[in-house]
Amino acid sequence: MKRNPKIDRVFHALGDPTRRAMLERLSSGPMSVSLLAEPFDMSLAAVVQHLQVLQQAGLVKTEKIGRVRSCRVEASGLRAAEEWLRARRPEWDRKLDRLEQFLDKPDKR
Amino acid sequence: MKRNPKIDRVFHALGDPTRRAMLERLSSGPMSVSLLAEPFDMSLAAVVQHLQVLQQAGLVKTEKIGRVRSCRVEASGLRAAEEWLRARRPEWDRKLDRLEQFLDKPDKR
Repeated sequence: MKRNPKIDRVFHALGDPTRRAMLERLSSGPMSVSLLAEPFDMSLAAVVQHLQVLQQAGLVKTEKIGRVRSCRVEASGLRAAEEWLRARRPEWDRKLDRLEQFLDKPDKR
Repeated sequence: MKRNPKIDRVFHALGDPTRRAMLERLSSGPMSVSLLAEPFDMSLAAVVQHLQVLQQAGLVKTEKIGRVRSCRVEASGLRAAEEWLRARRPEWDRKLDRLEQFLDKPDKR
């Protein structure tokens, strides 16, 4: 069985409910690590560990701004997972997407 | 933190590399459980257990045809995961999809 290390990292990261909840929280916009950590019933060290897994998977980026470390969603990992899932769907089902988009967004001209 | 049991099941199922490899194998088309099991170095019972997790997540459907149990990818679980991932991406990034589709598929009229 061939393995794809990037996809392995992404789905491993997404397999954990806490990490998914962090991504949900970050989808409202970038925030500091301490603000991100607020609703989670765990130590800051545990939050940082989860963040590292998300970072290694290309799902989150962190950046030091002054004295604060800010986190934000990184789209590349999310896109990689979406593409993997899409490629697993039957061709006829993927074609439905285009039909839906067509019905949803009629040409305005 | 709100939980979504369906999404939890889907990402739990996708978190395992063997189950992802099963989905990859099934993306070429439906096949019997024994054919699906062929490349995996595990007992048929272990394969069936993985299949059950995939089924409960809405990622695989199995159907008994005569004396053979046939499996195929079920699109609904895959779509649910794709939608969850897509909703986590920043708005500007999602807009890029539409631009890409537009550049890729110019209106033929």
